Amino acid sequence: MKDVIELSHGDGGINTSKLINNFFIKYFGNEILNKLEDSAILNLNGVNIAFTTDSFVVSPIFFPGGDIGKLSICGTINDLVTTGCKPIAISFAVIIEEGFPIEDLEKILTSINYVLKETNLKIVTGDTKVVNKGNADKIFINTTGIGILNEDINISPLNIKPGDKILINGSIGEHGLAILSSRKEFSFKSSLQSDCAPLSSLVNNMLGASKKIHALRDVTRGGLATILIELAKLSRTTMTIYEEKIPLKRETKGICEFLGLDPLYLANEGKMVAFVDRNDAEKVLAAMRKNKYGKDSQIIGEVNEKGEGLVIYQTKLNTRRVLDLQYSEQLPRIC
Amino acid sequence: MKDVIELSHGDGGINTSKLINNFFIKYFGNEILNKLEDSAILNLNGVNIAFTTDSFVVSPIFFPGGDIGKLSICGTINDLVTTGCKPIAISFAVIIEEGFPIEDLEKILTSINYVLKETNLKIVTGDTKVVNKGNADKIFINTTGIGILNEDINISPLNIKPGDKILINGSIGEHGLAILSSRKEFSFKSSLQSDCAPLSSLVNNMLGASKKIHALRDVTRGGLATILIELAKLSRTTMTIYEEKIPLKRETKGICEFLGLDPLYLANEGKMVAFVDRNDAEKVLAAMRKNKYGKDSQIIGEVNEKGEGLVIYQTKLNTRRVLDLQYSEQLPRIC
Repeated sequence: MKDVIELSHGDGGINTSKLINNFFIKYFGNEILNKLEDSAILNLNGVNIAFTTDSFVVSPIFFPGGDIGKLSICGTINDLVTTGCKPIAISFAVIIEEGFPIEDLEKILTSINYVLKETNLKIVTGDTKVVNKGNADKIFINTTGIGILNEDINISPLNIKPGDKILINGSIGEHGLAILSSRKEFSFKSSLQSDCAPLSSLVNNMLGASKKIHALRDVTRGGLATILIELAKLSRTTMTIYEEKIPLKRETKGICEFLGLDPLYLANEGKMVAFVDRNDAEKVLAAMRKNKYGKDSQIIGEVNEKGEGLVIYQTKLNTRRVLDLQYSEQLPRIC
Repeated sequence: MKDVIELSHGDGGINTSKLINNFFIKYFGNEILNKLEDSAILNLNGVNIAFTTDSFVVSPIFFPGGDIGKLSICGTINDLVTTGCKPIAISFAVIIEEGFPIEDLEKILTSINYVLKETNLKIVTGDTKVVNKGNADKIFINTTGIGILNEDINISPLNIKPGDKILINGSIGEHGLAILSSRKEFSFKSSLQSDCAPLSSLVNNMLGASKKIHALRDVTRGGLATILIELAKLSRTTMTIYEEKIPLKRETKGICEFLGLDPLYLANEGKMVAFVDRNDAEKVLAAMRKNKYGKDSQIIGEVNEKGEGLVIYQTKLNTRRVLDLQYSEQLPRIC
């Protein structure tokens, strides 16, 4: 590791992993943090809660399908519900650059409010900081969330088992491309919108359909490939996913081919993968498809066996390759 | 309000108050957020918790007596313990500017680790973002904390009563001046250090001495005057503080006179005011003085009567004036 922070340290890939392990875990390590799950699980006098934090630095702050406000609330909700908890409360801390238009702030607050209403959630505490012009890029938001865990729910990457089916709630890569298309330095236009969405109702429907959902993970930075590799390593399993099963919009496919991007590594902000006991997979799939955020859900693969943490990608031509962690995110500041 | 965010919107004074009320409360308002206390109190299946968030953008990030890391953990601990809760867990989210030296990161993590060890607290979840060079100023940290409230403790500004004594755990203004003296644009040198400290053990000792502590508040942005005015308004009381009783280091006094600053409005990061039933005030004072962060504790005033929220400042010459909210913080980015 070089002696300064590089953009790749924040991209969710190999360097982020090194930064976390070599520094944050080294200094702060404890039995909860070391699990490196999206949400920490805490027992507070007998009540189990999920607790998760995220800062959002997306650029541009307004993009097709969302903005930094919607992104921040959805991101925290989605991190919470990967534990199967019911989200209860969110904190909202904002760092604003001097000169930021109040009109833009109101747009952001309006879109946050919309998600709060839809999900029946509250922001209960907050903080405001303003820095001099040039000392931040417009606005950064931190949202930290708390949810209550039902006693009979036990969802964790460690519960992933051979035989489990792998489900996803729709097509991948749209958030990454929506951000890319809205950057000044890229000239291509597309009709793709970010998939940014709060997935609490989806997960609630899934939990209603089956008690055998073993693991959930929202598919964000690093894309589907990175998240599956992490889960394969955490659960010490080998899994296979099938190109022909993975939902992908025609336009996403076209842009990726044109720009040389791999949709498996593109960011999403409204996608969840689920690992479900094979006998309940169809039931859960049906429940997902009834939810507005799961209409295009698919079973995309399965867990094969205990192993070293490999994810095998089987193409439409029946070739098979092991997916690798990419050295660097294809795009910085996508969330 | 003008149509862009100004530095004064983040200074904890009148404009921050306007921003919060006209925008954040307007869009997010609910019965918990509207209380505008440092920590939200949530009931999670019968367990009461305190929940608080703060982002830290202090400049410079290293200053006499501390750094942005120590400041962030102490700030969140101190916000939590104003409720009388026992702090349990903290989240840590960092936004780092590309090119930031790893060596500086390690210094910051080391000083956080030191506070965690002293207070027996854990960071249980985190997030890392990196932005391009020039899109943030070195490093910003968000810490969000959770604590558990003991059932028999009820501490709130709303409990402040006429007759209560007002206590503080030591001398004021040192954090503000330590930051000021370390800014490039100021040439004066001083031996003053920031008072940045975690006050959980102090509050624990105070709670052990009396069940009649009515309210606690850490004295940060805006200084002692601003915090007391807020508390007087929240509790609808009139209170008096005495210049001769307020602990103030000789050097603080000298620098303030030289630069035309009012120490009542300077930031602190290790000071707590307490409102205590008059009969227990001496007991609590004695307990405070035994703690290493309370050796210079004093009773600085009292609550006089129900009223409109006035704070009266009685000088050594026995003149009396009503303290006003200042239009703007004397210094931006002090926390």
